[in-house]
Amino acid sequence: MTTKVDIFSQKIVLIGAGNVAFHLANALHNTPHNIVQIYNRSEKRLADFKNITQNLTNNLQDIFPNANVYLLAVSDDAIEKVAAQLPIHKQSIVAHTSGATPSTVLQQHPHHGIFYPLQTFSRHKTVNWSNIPLCLDGNTPETLTILQQLAQSINPNIYFINDQQRQQLHVAAVFANNFTNHLFAIAQDILQKQDLSFDLLKPLIQETVIKIQKHPPKKSQTGPAVRGDLQTMQRHLDLLKNLPNYQQLYQLLSKSIGDF
Amino acid sequence: MTTKVDIFSQKIVLIGAGNVAFHLANALHNTPHNIVQIYNRSEKRLADFKNITQNLTNNLQDIFPNANVYLLAVSDDAIEKVAAQLPIHKQSIVAHTSGATPSTVLQQHPHHGIFYPLQTFSRHKTVNWSNIPLCLDGNTPETLTILQQLAQSINPNIYFINDQQRQQLHVAAVFANNFTNHLFAIAQDILQKQDLSFDLLKPLIQETVIKIQKHPPKKSQTGPAVRGDLQTMQRHLDLLKNLPNYQQLYQLLSKSIGDF
Repeated sequence: MTTKVDIFSQKIVLIGAGNVAFHLANALHNTPHNIVQIYNRSEKRLADFKNITQNLTNNLQDIFPNANVYLLAVSDDAIEKVAAQLPIHKQSIVAHTSGATPSTVLQQHPHHGIFYPLQTFSRHKTVNWSNIPLCLDGNTPETLTILQQLAQSINPNIYFINDQQRQQLHVAAVFANNFTNHLFAIAQDILQKQDLSFDLLKPLIQETVIKIQKHPPKKSQTGPAVRGDLQTMQRHLDLLKNLPNYQQLYQLLSKSIGDF
Repeated sequence: MTTKVDIFSQKIVLIGAGNVAFHLANALHNTPHNIVQIYNRSEKRLADFKNITQNLTNNLQDIFPNANVYLLAVSDDAIEKVAAQLPIHKQSIVAHTSGATPSTVLQQHPHHGIFYPLQTFSRHKTVNWSNIPLCLDGNTPETLTILQQLAQSINPNIYFINDQQRQQLHVAAVFANNFTNHLFAIAQDILQKQDLSFDLLKPLIQETVIKIQKHPPKKSQTGPAVRGDLQTMQRHLDLLKNLPNYQQLYQLLSKSIGDF
């Protein structure tokens, strides 16, 4: 990046009113940039944004045509359709916030890019933006520079990540977040069947996560599968005999650990 | 539990010199109880215990016969064999520290039980015992009371857990710790193939674990599988086409989330 752009206030239209939109709106509201309008398909969720701007609309045709940046924080399957309907100037930048969606769905806009905050958001939980990697991409250096300005106004911790990387990153995030959460849910279910509290496992889970802060998870691997302890693995499979889904996961995950 | 036993100093022989033995020795050393001897198969690892006691042996026949409690912190497959060879009085309590091993392997000893600290231990990492659930069992009320005394001298956070519960707890721990760690390793591998740092995912992983402190993991489940977002799942499977093991895990875990 050699292009230099003076820092000035960007006019932003936010598209969407979900959790990502909600927290982005509140973060950008406290920067030199201005959220000048928020669109959402349904009027209901817009009420949460009254402290950000009075310009709230659920009509695509009412979207201001001359903002600098349009941030699309809508569901993955809506991005392409909404982007195609935006009644905006060609000079404007259109960026979406999705980890899973290629930037090509925005290619009808001459200036398009990605503004992907890599975190899971809950509506009513305060977000610490300094701890959230912002993954950026842009189809031109100027686009990337403007998105970088926006990003750095809420967190200096930015990454330039191209389409292929971002999509693989999203797969990795599914493994590290969605799938691990499901394993926690299975663990809790196994405990509940024995009238045992999930609290029993929380310190162990915390320790697992503390370890990977300093050591690669591959090197921290413990348990019967990595030891090749067939006797314990067989005992575990017997204990899961009435839970064939868990048994199947146990087998495949153990095999994967053994082969890793 | 109605039996009351006065708190007094128990004489403990520790069997084993691995990570559990090491941290248990150091914890019990700071209580009214006395570790009077430590046995280990190999002499080498005993050197780490010189600050605990001078009575270190690698000869089973030299084990003191008249201690109150023999704590077996040896590998799972060695417990039964070592327990069978202990040259000790019938009044003594023999307990092992394993989550995976039934207490029946100790049944030749009239007083036997379980002293299972539910945590993963690293040799050189300080242990916060106040954060480790101690899972206890005993074949008689007196045995359980003595083990409870020992446990409470290092952490009031104790659980009475029978054999069946403990074995299921151990399976659950494999899901919550070993398997999740493996998923972190897979995520790191996917990122490395794209020259991306695993640091990108650490905030997301931390958030996943913070969420389950307050909310059941089943209710916090996010991602394409729980949304039934077939398009994103297919895209992810395509991205994993050169990694058939990961593809297979992705399919089975997604199906499991969908069915949960």
